[in-house]
Amino acid sequence: MKNVEVVAGNGLLHRRMFLQTGVALAMTGYASAQQFTDDSWSLAPGTPVPEYGTPSRFEKNVVRTLSNPNGEPRNQHARTPHHLLNGTLTPNSLHFVISHTGDPDIDPDKHRLVIHGLVKQPLSFTLDSLSRYPMESRMAFIECGGNSAPLFSKEPIQANVQALHGLVSCAEWTGIRLATLLEEAGVDPKAKWMIAEGADSAHLSRSVPLTKAMDDAMIALYQNGERIMPGNGYPMRLLLPGWEGNMNIKWLRRIQLTELPNMSYYESKIYAPILPGGKAYQFYFIQEVKSFITHPSPGLAMKGPGFYEISGLAYSGNGRISKVMVSADGGRTWAQAALQEPVLSKAFTRFRVPWRWDGGPAILQSRAWDEAGYAQPTRTEFVATRGETTRVPAVTAFPNEHYNAIASWSIDRNGEVKHVYA
Amino acid sequence: MKNVEVVAGNGLLHRRMFLQTGVALAMTGYASAQQFTDDSWSLAPGTPVPEYGTPSRFEKNVVRTLSNPNGEPRNQHARTPHHLLNGTLTPNSLHFVISHTGDPDIDPDKHRLVIHGLVKQPLSFTLDSLSRYPMESRMAFIECGGNSAPLFSKEPIQANVQALHGLVSCAEWTGIRLATLLEEAGVDPKAKWMIAEGADSAHLSRSVPLTKAMDDAMIALYQNGERIMPGNGYPMRLLLPGWEGNMNIKWLRRIQLTELPNMSYYESKIYAPILPGGKAYQFYFIQEVKSFITHPSPGLAMKGPGFYEISGLAYSGNGRISKVMVSADGGRTWAQAALQEPVLSKAFTRFRVPWRWDGGPAILQSRAWDEAGYAQPTRTEFVATRGETTRVPAVTAFPNEHYNAIASWSIDRNGEVKHVYA
Repeated sequence: MKNVEVVAGNGLLHRRMFLQTGVALAMTGYASAQQFTDDSWSLAPGTPVPEYGTPSRFEKNVVRTLSNPNGEPRNQHARTPHHLLNGTLTPNSLHFVISHTGDPDIDPDKHRLVIHGLVKQPLSFTLDSLSRYPMESRMAFIECGGNSAPLFSKEPIQANVQALHGLVSCAEWTGIRLATLLEEAGVDPKAKWMIAEGADSAHLSRSVPLTKAMDDAMIALYQNGERIMPGNGYPMRLLLPGWEGNMNIKWLRRIQLTELPNMSYYESKIYAPILPGGKAYQFYFIQEVKSFITHPSPGLAMKGPGFYEISGLAYSGNGRISKVMVSADGGRTWAQAALQEPVLSKAFTRFRVPWRWDGGPAILQSRAWDEAGYAQPTRTEFVATRGETTRVPAVTAFPNEHYNAIASWSIDRNGEVKHVYA
Repeated sequence: MKNVEVVAGNGLLHRRMFLQTGVALAMTGYASAQQFTDDSWSLAPGTPVPEYGTPSRFEKNVVRTLSNPNGEPRNQHARTPHHLLNGTLTPNSLHFVISHTGDPDIDPDKHRLVIHGLVKQPLSFTLDSLSRYPMESRMAFIECGGNSAPLFSKEPIQANVQALHGLVSCAEWTGIRLATLLEEAGVDPKAKWMIAEGADSAHLSRSVPLTKAMDDAMIALYQNGERIMPGNGYPMRLLLPGWEGNMNIKWLRRIQLTELPNMSYYESKIYAPILPGGKAYQFYFIQEVKSFITHPSPGLAMKGPGFYEISGLAYSGNGRISKVMVSADGGRTWAQAALQEPVLSKAFTRFRVPWRWDGGPAILQSRAWDEAGYAQPTRTEFVATRGETTRVPAVTAFPNEHYNAIASWSIDRNGEVKHVYA
């Protein structure tokens, strides 16, 4: 191993190591004659190419976990398996979903988007008429306000990245800037809020400040190139880049401009994080700077000492990620991670650090900063302000929201990876 | 309509129009009381969220067209429906595929990648061992050398964008830089080429200059975040950004470093474009600068005069797109299109121009330039060098490759869109 620069404790290497040299010879095999024979699939024709492709049968475990697979009359969570994915975006079939009354079966030709309330002229749009407006595309993460809620627990819950952090995903969304439609309708100067409502049978609605609506809000019609998936709001959803997932109203049917917010169930009760003193945050909209390591992570056992890449996801509702630091010794020393270009505002940024694991105990952490100057807090800092809970948890039953503190994975001498607080 | 600047003939508007004003009021409806009733899907719970999402049943026509749906013993083409998509990337299920003997059903635990030939130490990699190497992600288009071959026809073939240009797609690929593995094996100074071979039963192989292998070639393991689709090379493929699709060997099993190219069937016979004088290009690797309009396009009828967005895809195997110009009058006058940021090297760039169609005849064209200074040729310029064919065509039976000239869609007074030469 040559040109390898150790930059932090417990074997963290310089992020540009991989541009200089290979380091992993020990884990590869030497080629032998046996490797030049044909496998069975190289000897006979394969299966016909389908009209709409699906993953290999060997990937059948790469699916979302469901909190309510039979659709009982309560909400349903489908979590993204980040520990089995790589890159910076989430394929549509694996994008997280929370649905309160299942996925409605909307006929796109009959669906209407109505803009009304404090406007000069209420307007009604068909999907066809919307499709003639100027469009834009942007990568954006969407995160449930309740993502990572299990980490409020006083004791670290033993679960994998999918269970702990699976309620966030990132896609390329294409649609019409909401400001274009609001200008068309003519905004009454008295309007300060808008109430967005879905066509699901829950009629889920949220209040959005008009400043956000006129800034970067989008009526999204396409997700990663194709029409939005049923669980993500087909045929159209509100996209509020960087803001609480629940506000990105799916199956969007109505936008009402108002002077005051609606104080709906979700904004006044559910997504109003309760503080230790008994008060609560109201209108806590932004998903703040956060990161977590996906590889290695709990459930992905290490396969012996040697070279690994530590890799994970960072994102901020306040803009671009400016820096990610990684520790292999529980936060005593840190190495700067490489950020996959292009680093985009309010989108996933994949970070990577090369690591030589010596086979001894290690605690992996990542910490992100954003261009607005915010740093991801330590868990100690976070719970000092926001509290923690001693409730014995079902993973979905946590009462608190907007957890964004540093997560820690411990690795023992057997290579087992566990969730710990450090 | 206010603040609208006409910048080229036949109603083309300034690309930043949409930041200044709405222009489309005429095509929207006014809201009425009837629009505040509930549709049936708003009155009852929907269907449970699935583990692996699929599109709405109303999108069942958004599929790839197949040239050989029953998998008869010849090649199979699956073309991307660009006229029904939007944004800058292609969802995995709709990525184009050409398969010569179907999709092999590869067991990823048994598959091996062997690097041998002119190296110091031949190496064999399992998927597990590869997954420990440093990775990178990049957006990249892949285009079949035969994409757009129908446009070699002396008469314009009446077909849609999917049939004419459906053998190109764009995805985020994540994997290991090939240079890292070659450095590990140790490149013999005599090596100038590598021969890459797939594990399909065709054992498809192509020769690649070692300079490209050491530049930006990747062993791709993930496509848009999840494992590569079976038709795109599961569990691993060679990615040669910007180079002829056929060279991006799928189901990659062997890389042999050599002094000379292999002169395999595909490089010596199929992808050696024949010139009018009877000579042929040998080793024509780069997919040169190109663009086509997806909206409007043949088969998508116009719905009355008024505002439309003209939108399409541009890309170049030589780097970033630097400019796209659009004409609505068959090339007499041109307006500069807006390019969706971020504009990435060797990836799709979505371009957009606002347009006010007056209901009269129009001919739409797009022309792209890249940062290397190349301009997309007119069809007249192109066929003067490369020739055309009078063969009555089956769409898949064209003999020539690397077509990248300007494409033209005519619009008549009824709003019908046709493929023409102009």
